[in-house]
Amino acid sequence: MTLEAIRYRPGSLQILNQLLLPHETVYDEIRSVRDGYEAIKSMKVRGAPAIAIVGCLSLAVELRGGAGGDDLVSFIRDSLCHLTSARPTAVNMGRAARELMEFTENESMEKNTEPLRDSVIGWIEEMLERDVNDNKKIGNYGAQHILSGVPRDSITILTHCNTGSLATAGYGTALGVVRSLHALGRLKRLYCTETRPYNQGARLTAYEAVAEGFPATLITDSMAALAMREKGITAVVVGADRVVANGDTANKVGTYQLAIAAKHHGIPFYVAAPSTSCDLSLESGRDIVIEERPAQELTSINGVPVAAPGIDVWNPAFDVTPHQLITGGIITELGVFLPSELQAALTGRLTAL
Amino acid sequence: MTLEAIRYRPGSLQILNQLLLPHETVYDEIRSVRDGYEAIKSMKVRGAPAIAIVGCLSLAVELRGGAGGDDLVSFIRDSLCHLTSARPTAVNMGRAARELMEFTENESMEKNTEPLRDSVIGWIEEMLERDVNDNKKIGNYGAQHILSGVPRDSITILTHCNTGSLATAGYGTALGVVRSLHALGRLKRLYCTETRPYNQGARLTAYEAVAEGFPATLITDSMAALAMREKGITAVVVGADRVVANGDTANKVGTYQLAIAAKHHGIPFYVAAPSTSCDLSLESGRDIVIEERPAQELTSINGVPVAAPGIDVWNPAFDVTPHQLITGGIITELGVFLPSELQAALTGRLTAL
Repeated sequence: MTLEAIRYRPGSLQILNQLLLPHETVYDEIRSVRDGYEAIKSMKVRGAPAIAIVGCLSLAVELRGGAGGDDLVSFIRDSLCHLTSARPTAVNMGRAARELMEFTENESMEKNTEPLRDSVIGWIEEMLERDVNDNKKIGNYGAQHILSGVPRDSITILTHCNTGSLATAGYGTALGVVRSLHALGRLKRLYCTETRPYNQGARLTAYEAVAEGFPATLITDSMAALAMREKGITAVVVGADRVVANGDTANKVGTYQLAIAAKHHGIPFYVAAPSTSCDLSLESGRDIVIEERPAQELTSINGVPVAAPGIDVWNPAFDVTPHQLITGGIITELGVFLPSELQAALTGRLTAL
Repeated sequence: MTLEAIRYRPGSLQILNQLLLPHETVYDEIRSVRDGYEAIKSMKVRGAPAIAIVGCLSLAVELRGGAGGDDLVSFIRDSLCHLTSARPTAVNMGRAARELMEFTENESMEKNTEPLRDSVIGWIEEMLERDVNDNKKIGNYGAQHILSGVPRDSITILTHCNTGSLATAGYGTALGVVRSLHALGRLKRLYCTETRPYNQGARLTAYEAVAEGFPATLITDSMAALAMREKGITAVVVGADRVVANGDTANKVGTYQLAIAAKHHGIPFYVAAPSTSCDLSLESGRDIVIEERPAQELTSINGVPVAAPGIDVWNPAFDVTPHQLITGGIITELGVFLPSELQAALTGRLTAL
């Protein structure tokens, strides 16, 4: 089967409720912008690309139902503003809102209400399709690059956190590469770290792997280096929160440690990310501020305390992997690039696989 | 305060019940070998050195109460056999039982029941004292070595798992080094990893740190490399399950990954272990078999499922750090040695700090 985290048919949207995973598989109906806002706010849907898609699709559903009446531009503006406020740090929703608003305003100059409604709905539905297609390209480029680099028939991948259907519009980024290898019959095994403290690997990546039938093994974050030595890991592939101009990459905490271990073992380390996650306005990873999150993410699990009361906690949400450690390359929908090639590739001065 | 995990006064033994930590601090009275067996079997006490001490002390308590009558040698033999069977893989209890039985048999050739009883009790009480003293020596040698190597006034240590009063007769090995630095007023901060999957760092090391008043911060295992880069870690100090002739060291899983990260950052990596944990009969770490433990240690916490049902799990209990990565040295009660010096040092061919 293929895991569908977002089920959209024109006029109808259902999302897999991630709060109930991995124990229950329940789809919630999203009938309105208000439902979309609640789903994002309550983290039924998470992952920056997925948040943007679900937010915009909730608007498309309401538009198909005739919402907005004659003052469609105001309705769209208010809806996007509301959706963006649900998780203000998820940059993709903000970017999608700006782009869609600009499109809406331009279209409104030459179109009446109903043609405008159709145009906006079309834009949103294309956005879903484009995101999934970009992820498929990432998956295929990544799989081909890894296969071309090794003489082996089958590939063992180690990944971190969740970068699959549950975090994107569909298919996934790093997990999309795994999906492509599996589709080609070349995936021997996936090792996924549990990804403390929020356990996205144990809860979500493991769930996707079981649902998709990938041969997959869960390990603790601390076992990754041992797996590299003992289990014949061919490549490490992770996603990205942000890739900056020199290729330095911010991603879920633990990524930096994996990259060091991969380097030590001579295993290629890849970052898989759509070009929309690349931010050429920052020169290097030193410019990225590391967000620190609440202590209780470490000190309790599902509300049950697991650490000694009174201990201080440091809980950075992500870390920055310097480009020197990204030895495999950066996998985008445009191709696979060395960190040093990224800027030229994204600005059209370089085309490559 | 000083945390006392084992409270022994002649004729009286109490142990801190580790099953209730970190949430409740309760001491259980151990009145007999039977109580000692139950405490070991149920893991109220854990850590190979601590198991041996509690087992032998439970025998001393019963001997002081007059147990054994005229057939003291048989009583001691049966008791030691019973105690060893509680956790057969904890090698220290087995070694202590063999040594004590040999001592008992030799003494019984020239002593009557009551003088023999006194000798055996004396042997056990000396064992407790010797273990604590050895740990204090490890702590002091380690602290001096670390202080001599850096120009800084205060030291930030990163450690893994639990190697403190709760795992030993008292004082601790790697955590004993931290204790010595703290006593000298030179400990700036301790970073302890939570140590998945069994969380000994979050539950036990954090508990000891709070109880002793160490400035200490809990991190996930995945944050160690970031802490090395961002938090000015001076040295990494860990314990050992076994150190073999060439210095390769088996310890709690995750140790290998920490050693790689320490090497990458140029931070000295130390192993702290009593000479009784050194096994010169094995040439290299390749000869050590890695024990694999049940999947549910990863897939549930306190009985609550935390991973997707159906996922495969790899759960090695420990890993082997090659001696090349032990860049600081091996801290024993005889001094601090480079891995290449260990064999000569332990066989008396080398004396050194």
